[in-house]
Amino acid sequence: MSDPDGRLDAQMTFLGEAEKLRTVLRATPIGDGSRPENSGEHSWHLALYALVLAEHAPAGVAIDRVIRMLLIHDIVEIDAGDVPIYAQTAEGQALTDAAEQAAAARIFGLLPDDQAEEMLALWQEFEAAETPDAVFAKSLDRFQPPNLNLASGGGSWTTYSVTFDVLDQRVGRPVRRGAPALWDWIAPKIRAFLG
Amino acid sequence: MSDPDGRLDAQMTFLGEAEKLRTVLRATPIGDGSRPENSGEHSWHLALYALVLAEHAPAGVAIDRVIRMLLIHDIVEIDAGDVPIYAQTAEGQALTDAAEQAAAARIFGLLPDDQAEEMLALWQEFEAAETPDAVFAKSLDRFQPPNLNLASGGGSWTTYSVTFDVLDQRVGRPVRRGAPALWDWIAPKIRAFLG
Repeated sequence: MSDPDGRLDAQMTFLGEAEKLRTVLRATPIGDGSRPENSGEHSWHLALYALVLAEHAPAGVAIDRVIRMLLIHDIVEIDAGDVPIYAQTAEGQALTDAAEQAAAARIFGLLPDDQAEEMLALWQEFEAAETPDAVFAKSLDRFQPPNLNLASGGGSWTTYSVTFDVLDQRVGRPVRRGAPALWDWIAPKIRAFLG
Repeated sequence: MSDPDGRLDAQMTFLGEAEKLRTVLRATPIGDGSRPENSGEHSWHLALYALVLAEHAPAGVAIDRVIRMLLIHDIVEIDAGDVPIYAQTAEGQALTDAAEQAAAARIFGLLPDDQAEEMLALWQEFEAAETPDAVFAKSLDRFQPPNLNLASGGGSWTTYSVTFDVLDQRVGRPVRRGAPALWDWIAPKIRAFLG
C-alpha cells in the first residue's frame, strides 16, 4: 500500500483539478498577439516576474512566499472564471467575490486538511492585499498585463477602449502601492501608447 | 530617470523574451486531451507540484529552490525547442545539450550580469541533476507527464507507441531516484494502462 492515509491521492486529485486553470482564457493576449493568455501560463509568468523583480519589492517582502501566492492566486477561476479588470462593475465585484470564495473552498478543499487550510489562508491573504507580500504580489498581477498589451499593440486596452485615467485608477494605483519603481518605469510607455 | 543603471530595462527585456516559452508545444496533451501542453504552463504546473508534493521530497530538499528551478528549467526551449523524451536519441541528445547551453547563455544573458550568473547557475544545477534539489526537480519533471497521459487517455504514449519497459527506463528511473513514493503511487496505474 503506497499511500495508506490517502494523502497522495488527495494531492494528486488537487493537482489534476488545478491543471484546468489553463483552459481559462484572459482578456490580455500573449506578447505576439496570436491568442489570449490563459490563467495557468499567466501564473507562471507572474511567478517569474516575482523572481526577477524581487529587488523592486519593498523591504520585508519574502519573495518565495510571493511566488507561492502567485502560483495559486488564480486557481479559483476554474469555477469562477476570469473577469477582465476593465469589465468589472461594483455590483459584479460582489458576485465575483462570492463565487471565488466558494471556488476556493471547493478546490483547495480537495487537498489534505492541513494543506487545504494553508493554501486557503495564502489565497485569502493575497485577496485581502494587506500584508507586504500580498501587496507586492497584487502589484505584479496588475503590472504584467500592460507589458503584454504594449507588446501586442493594444490587447485588452483596445477591446475595452481604455483611457489613461481609467487605467491609472484600476492598474496604476495598485502597482504604485506595491511597486512604485515599476509604475515609474511603465507609466510613460503607457501614456505614449494611449495618448 | 526611473532606471538610471538600466537594470529594470534588462529585467523587462528578459521577461518579455521568457514569455515566448508558452509558444513552445510539448508532446503531452493537457488533461482534457484538447490540445498539446505548452512549456510555460507546464512550468507553472510543475512548480505547483513541488509546492503540493513537498513532503515527498527526500530530507534536505529546499522546496523554494526547487520551485525557482522549475520556473526557469525550460526557458532554453525558446531557442532549442522541446524534444519529446520518447523521441530523443543518444546522438540527438548531444546536439540538444549544445543548443540548450547556447540558449541559456543568450536568454539568461539578457538579465543584469549578477542575475544572469545566478539564473544560469540554477539552470545548470537542474540540468546536472546532482544536488538533492535538482534531483527532486527532475523527478517531478518526469512524474507530471504520465499523469497527463493517464488523464487524456494515452497522449504521448500513444504517439510514440511506448511500452512499460521503455517508460520505466526513461521515466521510472529518474522518478524513483528523486521521489520513490511518487513512483510507487503511479507505477501500477501506468502498468494497468499500458498492459
